[in-house]
Amino acid sequence: MPKYQNLDTCKAYFELLSLPKLDIAQALAENGPDRVKRYEVPLGGGLQYNYAAKAVGEAVLTKLEELATQQELIPKYQALLNGEIMNTGENRMVLHQLARGRLGADVQSEGRSLSEFYQQQNERVRAFAAAIQSGRILGSTGRPFDTVVQIGIGGSDLGPRALYLALDNWVRANGNTPKMRAEFISNVDPDDAAAVMNRVDPETTLFVLVSKSGTTQETLTNEEFVVKKLGSGDRALPAPRKHMVAVTSESSPLAKSDAYLDAFFIDDYIGGRYSATSPVGGVVLSLCFGSDVFAAVLAGAHEADRAALEPSPRANAAMLDALIGLYERNVLKLPATAVLPYSQALSRFPAHLQQLDMESNGKQVSRDGGAIAYETGPLVFGEPGTNGQHSFYQLLHQGTDIVPLQFVGFRESQLRDDLEFQGSTGQQKLNANLAAQIVAFACGKEDENPNKQFPGGRPSSLIHGARLSPEALGALLAHFENKVMFQGFLWNVNSFDQEGVQLGKVLTKQVLGGDMPEHLRAFADLLGAAPEDR
Amino acid sequence: MPKYQNLDTCKAYFELLSLPKLDIAQALAENGPDRVKRYEVPLGGGLQYNYAAKAVGEAVLTKLEELATQQELIPKYQALLNGEIMNTGENRMVLHQLARGRLGADVQSEGRSLSEFYQQQNERVRAFAAAIQSGRILGSTGRPFDTVVQIGIGGSDLGPRALYLALDNWVRANGNTPKMRAEFISNVDPDDAAAVMNRVDPETTLFVLVSKSGTTQETLTNEEFVVKKLGSGDRALPAPRKHMVAVTSESSPLAKSDAYLDAFFIDDYIGGRYSATSPVGGVVLSLCFGSDVFAAVLAGAHEADRAALEPSPRANAAMLDALIGLYERNVLKLPATAVLPYSQALSRFPAHLQQLDMESNGKQVSRDGGAIAYETGPLVFGEPGTNGQHSFYQLLHQGTDIVPLQFVGFRESQLRDDLEFQGSTGQQKLNANLAAQIVAFACGKEDENPNKQFPGGRPSSLIHGARLSPEALGALLAHFENKVMFQGFLWNVNSFDQEGVQLGKVLTKQVLGGDMPEHLRAFADLLGAAPEDR
Repeated sequence: MPKYQNLDTCKAYFELLSLPKLDIAQALAENGPDRVKRYEVPLGGGLQYNYAAKAVGEAVLTKLEELATQQELIPKYQALLNGEIMNTGENRMVLHQLARGRLGADVQSEGRSLSEFYQQQNERVRAFAAAIQSGRILGSTGRPFDTVVQIGIGGSDLGPRALYLALDNWVRANGNTPKMRAEFISNVDPDDAAAVMNRVDPETTLFVLVSKSGTTQETLTNEEFVVKKLGSGDRALPAPRKHMVAVTSESSPLAKSDAYLDAFFIDDYIGGRYSATSPVGGVVLSLCFGSDVFAAVLAGAHEADRAALEPSPRANAAMLDALIGLYERNVLKLPATAVLPYSQALSRFPAHLQQLDMESNGKQVSRDGGAIAYETGPLVFGEPGTNGQHSFYQLLHQGTDIVPLQFVGFRESQLRDDLEFQGSTGQQKLNANLAAQIVAFACGKEDENPNKQFPGGRPSSLIHGARLSPEALGALLAHFENKVMFQGFLWNVNSFDQEGVQLGKVLTKQVLGGDMPEHLRAFADLLGAAPEDR
Repeated sequence: MPKYQNLDTCKAYFELLSLPKLDIAQALAENGPDRVKRYEVPLGGGLQYNYAAKAVGEAVLTKLEELATQQELIPKYQALLNGEIMNTGENRMVLHQLARGRLGADVQSEGRSLSEFYQQQNERVRAFAAAIQSGRILGSTGRPFDTVVQIGIGGSDLGPRALYLALDNWVRANGNTPKMRAEFISNVDPDDAAAVMNRVDPETTLFVLVSKSGTTQETLTNEEFVVKKLGSGDRALPAPRKHMVAVTSESSPLAKSDAYLDAFFIDDYIGGRYSATSPVGGVVLSLCFGSDVFAAVLAGAHEADRAALEPSPRANAAMLDALIGLYERNVLKLPATAVLPYSQALSRFPAHLQQLDMESNGKQVSRDGGAIAYETGPLVFGEPGTNGQHSFYQLLHQGTDIVPLQFVGFRESQLRDDLEFQGSTGQQKLNANLAAQIVAFACGKEDENPNKQFPGGRPSSLIHGARLSPEALGALLAHFENKVMFQGFLWNVNSFDQEGVQLGKVLTKQVLGGDMPEHLRAFADLLGAAPEDR
């Protein structure tokens, strides 16, 4: 069994602190093309992770390799794959990788092979999607379904939504059209559900209710809202829940109801923010784009999971990304990271990564509840390029703080519907901007006018590939999951629980129940939220 | 004329550094209701700025007041309103406030009253919107327009888009429907424009091309793409640009073309990120929601602009917000701020504020090009609550860094289409969550299990009001603009230029032209962006 120990028990960590810092501009000026060629690792799905513009050289990389060994990153990943209890706080295994393919032991729970269970659920989703798409299952007024509305929040929303948006154009390439279109309801703000319900035709809309526990306040509230809407008015449906399927755990209240059209199961070993490749994402993606597209996402993710088993960090993109991120966080003391995909299809991918990373590693205690005396997970944010260039890049270039950057780019567009204008296509302009930004951030520019000076020294990495296909998307998703996992191992935190969300739930109940401390009531009163305010 | 000097020339700044830090939990526990009542200021549009959960007490507030005096915040704001050159780098006046109403001198340029000019343009927009909506102006095939597509990037996109999304439900309340629907094309990624063009009917779509200079690469590329699409295929329009209006400066190439259906003018005194209340936002909002709704946005913004003239910081929400933000950035040394609206309608408002704040104050030199030895603008990010609670709040509660928070909430929903479920409406649940989060962040919780401990001490403010109306939205927008302006005065930076975007443009041209340094070519080659790669 690998040894779990804090980062600051590792010799390599202290050695890293005292190594000289690399001048990125100088490194690129001296041997840029060679560095760009050598500092690159495949990450699966046809993608490459390039770290030539990161502030690391051979000396730092060697120490990071030693750190990977000292923190036993590969043995820990293997332990996870083999079903050891990695979510220590909740006493659970962590098996989201198993949802896309087996890389370890045949993990069992209550005498059942979980690999088989996950496959079986995927097959049930496949059969269900086929029945909906072929019209074998119709809406309760006899009309075929053409719209999916996913009701879920957090991991039941951000990942599936990011993937849906990322694939919508890809599926439309070559004149195809998606089989169904999707909408999402997440917020307990009633305007969210009301707006979506105003946009859909109840007779042809299938709702996918996603809550592992079956007790999520927002999701149950939105279910109730939707059921009431479907069941009222001139065109009331006789049995609104027959337009609904549940994605939930087998023990949840939702699973026990036969009111729904169907139910698909997940379990406690797949955390919300890691569940996009389970039926949580699988139902909506299979319904809209076909089960083969979802299977291709899983295949890409599985490939990245396998690539993350490579023992040498220099050949393991997820591990290297994790190590370099740690170097930036704990040695260079940079508190944030920006994710900047040069692909409009990835417009909500940063919001997914923000959850994935910040909810996983935004922790203050070690996995066994001990104290930690160093920084853990960074703040993560981002928007697609080139949009961000006209927004917050000013601060990234010339602000007083340095923010490490994670770029993503593709040689080809998804729709392949482009135009040459002033000597280049839109895609070439997009990528010219991306290459230019990497160099502008890294190298900066001297100028007589101090306002036009760029200090440079802003590190960035680039994940790139031919095209944002389902396989590439799956690999991209899994790469970041695995990066976050390795960083959790490095920091010795539990990346798989989220105790930090509990206190808000407790206090919310106090407000709604009317029994709360005075200072909480004072804020609740401002917003009309306490029972007495109603 | 006010004196422009660096923050670290101010006595009050150094005195702030040595003041004892406030324990927010203790302050709220001791006299929460009183504090919540007293630490509140109206900001215009019916909104209140509450700072009871900020880490400030009387001692700090007194010093912040002195700092406001020492940095002459009100005289500087007055100078701006009176048309002094505040954008020193570009030698320009700064007049976005004048676009919504006059509070200073009758500012002239080339013998013309700019107040009259801005009003005149607003009236032209009003007449145009009426002509489109009444069907007096039809599409080139004789059909009425029902869709607007705004083509613009940065300030020509984020602000207008955020406002459009914020008002769409408000307009729909009471069974109304918007007059037209809007789409937005921003990214040079061809998938962005192609996807939007796949969703609209060219015959009934009006395009609003927004570029002050008329030379923005992304916008011209997207214009060309759209014109080609409109002009080709079975249903080719005879004169595609007759489905387009330009919003641009009078001297731009776009203004000089008579190919467009019409053109509306802005000038160099309204920066992109401050232009949502000019025709940049006015055309699309007036077309979709009616000119009266846009006028109400302007009225709310004007009210907030007027409120920001209040000399006493304790009675001036924008100034106080600025001062407290400075305290968090430069005294408490907190590098980021999260904007968390509990309103789905404000889903893209954080992206607008991210641009507004980071592009304005992410600066490393003073307004006269001198050195600065303190932190300037923070990193800004955010997502709507309650969604964020299920995403990145884990790190905000239990991460190793503290992130100050800016909450926004409303007593009523926009659509007023809500449901009581388990004893409370969705809106009450939403606001109960918001009140609970304020207290959870501020006060934390002790627990035997270290993993369930919440350290508290996380400061937040709350902007709240009855309902997100156009007036409230305008005031909210202007509040943040004025906050950013005051912070710029405090830090002595020019909040109105963006030299940090220039280097990327220069290097992009090098890539597209094929003449670039080796290390830039190496990155460009990875992405197929250089001419030789094609």
